[in-house]
Amino acid sequence: MEEDEQLKSQEAGTEAEEQQVGLRDEFIQEIAGLLAADDADRVQELCRELPAADAGELIVKLDSDRRHKLVEMLENELNPETFSYLDREILNDLLEHMSARHIASIVNRLDSDDAIHLIAHLDEERRGDIMRHLNRNLRAAVEEGLTYPEGSAGRLMQREFVAIPQFWTVGKTVDYLRAVASTMPEKFYNIFIVDPMHRFVGAVALSNVLCAQRSVKIDTLVGEEHITVPVTMDQGQAALLFSRKDLLSAPVIDEDERLIGVLTVDDIVDVIHAEAEKDFLNISGVSDSDIHSSVIATANSRFFWLAINLLTAIAASIVISFFEDTIAKIAVLAVLMPIVASMGGNAGTQTLAVAVRALATKDLSSANSLRVIQKEVIVALIDGILFALIMGTVVFLWFHNPQLGMIIGAAMVMNLIAAGFSGALIPIIMERMGHDPAQSAVVFLTTVTDIVGFFSFLGLASWLMV
Amino acid sequence: MEEDEQLKSQEAGTEAEEQQVGLRDEFIQEIAGLLAADDADRVQELCRELPAADAGELIVKLDSDRRHKLVEMLENELNPETFSYLDREILNDLLEHMSARHIASIVNRLDSDDAIHLIAHLDEERRGDIMRHLNRNLRAAVEEGLTYPEGSAGRLMQREFVAIPQFWTVGKTVDYLRAVASTMPEKFYNIFIVDPMHRFVGAVALSNVLCAQRSVKIDTLVGEEHITVPVTMDQGQAALLFSRKDLLSAPVIDEDERLIGVLTVDDIVDVIHAEAEKDFLNISGVSDSDIHSSVIATANSRFFWLAINLLTAIAASIVISFFEDTIAKIAVLAVLMPIVASMGGNAGTQTLAVAVRALATKDLSSANSLRVIQKEVIVALIDGILFALIMGTVVFLWFHNPQLGMIIGAAMVMNLIAAGFSGALIPIIMERMGHDPAQSAVVFLTTVTDIVGFFSFLGLASWLMV
Repeated sequence: MEEDEQLKSQEAGTEAEEQQVGLRDEFIQEIAGLLAADDADRVQELCRELPAADAGELIVKLDSDRRHKLVEMLENELNPETFSYLDREILNDLLEHMSARHIASIVNRLDSDDAIHLIAHLDEERRGDIMRHLNRNLRAAVEEGLTYPEGSAGRLMQREFVAIPQFWTVGKTVDYLRAVASTMPEKFYNIFIVDPMHRFVGAVALSNVLCAQRSVKIDTLVGEEHITVPVTMDQGQAALLFSRKDLLSAPVIDEDERLIGVLTVDDIVDVIHAEAEKDFLNISGVSDSDIHSSVIATANSRFFWLAINLLTAIAASIVISFFEDTIAKIAVLAVLMPIVASMGGNAGTQTLAVAVRALATKDLSSANSLRVIQKEVIVALIDGILFALIMGTVVFLWFHNPQLGMIIGAAMVMNLIAAGFSGALIPIIMERMGHDPAQSAVVFLTTVTDIVGFFSFLGLASWLMV
Repeated sequence: MEEDEQLKSQEAGTEAEEQQVGLRDEFIQEIAGLLAADDADRVQELCRELPAADAGELIVKLDSDRRHKLVEMLENELNPETFSYLDREILNDLLEHMSARHIASIVNRLDSDDAIHLIAHLDEERRGDIMRHLNRNLRAAVEEGLTYPEGSAGRLMQREFVAIPQFWTVGKTVDYLRAVASTMPEKFYNIFIVDPMHRFVGAVALSNVLCAQRSVKIDTLVGEEHITVPVTMDQGQAALLFSRKDLLSAPVIDEDERLIGVLTVDDIVDVIHAEAEKDFLNISGVSDSDIHSSVIATANSRFFWLAINLLTAIAASIVISFFEDTIAKIAVLAVLMPIVASMGGNAGTQTLAVAVRALATKDLSSANSLRVIQKEVIVALIDGILFALIMGTVVFLWFHNPQLGMIIGAAMVMNLIAAGFSGALIPIIMERMGHDPAQSAVVFLTTVTDIVGFFSFLGLASWLMV
């Protein structure tokens, strides 16, 4: 049945190609051509009405020269929110070439959270230049936002929200909203209730306000669960909270429980994307936002990971060098030894990926870690025995040497068990030590599987065949 | 500056540990103990009020026996939405042991989308049993929902929504909502406007309704962008649409543009999590929801991937076997050859991960694929030359053989270029052929880097040193 559903889902995927989200490639190529031909009028005409996400995609997909030209040509016709859709690297590339006044004119049209996000990317000196050109209120909000650590709720929150006293009725609330409509945030999802000290009391869903009679006291509509986000909470934790509680927005409070901002689900969706991207890239040895980095920056950031990998590869080579004499006598060992190491590496990576993911989603914690490790070792044992039988047979048929077949089979079982055990244990230990398990666990794992793989296979062969 | 911010964000991470989202491990262990002691009263007392996500986490972290016991003890005291938080494997494990009547009593208390999700997990026979016990309306909704393919908007959408005719005023709308409040969905985020044929006309944000005067015509509040989701749209595409447009909910329409349902952002958040998890696990050679599978199912599903890996490892071994005579003469080649293959595999995986991710986020398409491939090859060339120099020096110092150093350096450059080129090209080709690049690209890639790595190193050595 599982296959059946995969098939169906693939069909849906194929059908969906016609309903593609985002820009058509032909459009991007047309703009690229117009930019090369310096046709500013036509570029403005085609791009003026682009929604922010589409303008962001266009900027991302153009090369660096055309990107600058586009931003220059559109200037203030570009939706300022476009900049919220750009990765750090592209943003830096663009901002470097723009005047402080131009950047400030963009920032002035952003909500405080987007403004902080943009300004946080600049170095100290440019920050100062731009701050001077900002509206007074926005400047205060940005300055305050920058005091919270990167990646905290304080950086992410919006400072525009609707808060009312708890003794109001629905009728009074609606009248108030109608009266002050022009000063309200463009969109809001909840009304917050505060006490006279501006401490958070509860949140009311707008649908509940709309469906209630005018005479109803507003605080009777407060939802059951009292959920607040401390201003210092890490954004990953906040994202977890949102998806567990199906929240649309959550009040952000300071250490005195005063309501100071609101986190909204659209920002959380971005956080979820960013965290997923980070884990996905890190486990493959790449830093975030790598695709948009310059050639030199990319070569530089990947070098570090490859250098660590080189060290583990050399460690494995040293293990092999212990058995150089054996290999000189039985060269076929060199033919077969990468198989044992490779199978261990792959089996270990499977376990590692499952463990890293489960740690991120809280499906794995000390409550069940022993059970997970135990399961991984048993799975490794089962697959190890199966592959030992297969590989033993293959080697027997290939080299007509039953002893060699048994040796590679035994080494396979040993390395797969080592892989299952360390693939589960390493990320659990790293998490408990406060490290990001996605980032560095693979190195430790492949070191283990390479060394155990080569040592068990070559060691058994030296012992039994020489 | 980048490092500085990473540091800050880690600090936030450490602080946030005290504000942990989810259950404490001690609580889970306490429940596990009470279940072992068959203390039903105390278990009910502690778990009755658990929010669905927390109850889901508890079920996930208990072992299979305790899990069944818990569900049995709580019976109808368990929040029915708990089942929406469970993965396929755990859900199947639980449902297998429950009576059709018990399952139906849970499904009857769910929204139509959650009900469909749950029933879709059952085999035909059990589905029939349970359908008979469902309320008539829900049964019709479930039957209709199951006609759409798994993973489509039709499966995910809610059938409860608020739709009004376009000529109404804000006042009439509010009066209507107050009058029919009891029949409204528990929460809704938009009011949809339809024409007399029930075709979708536009969506109005609740905050705009609340802030508008009673005399305002409702259709003047419709947002600028006219966004609809066709019922057959793939859920991944829908998620992309939501995050690009910062949507809270979107109308789902059938082929005649009639409004038939609504997608809400909380379901989309689940989709984003699921798709990220799928890519993350697939690139490491694991199928989804692997952590909760039984030992046998896990060993079975991983076996397939490892078997494919075995084939590529054997292909690499065959390449090595061409040079068996050379290795017998110069055994040190066997010591060094895994380094070349390993560096190629890792460099290729870096490129692959970036390309797969960029394809998923639409940062990479035919508009810029040539540029991306070109960049990857240049990055590979730069890092290749650097590692050639490093490894050449290491080999010279280790074995006092300058020729061997030059050979490993040359092989390193060749393999890293092959890795960069194929790491970018393979996923692009797979995507264009309609395959999921995360799932199978790694196999092709490591086949390339193993073969190029062993062939270039051993081939050069045979040619120059023998």
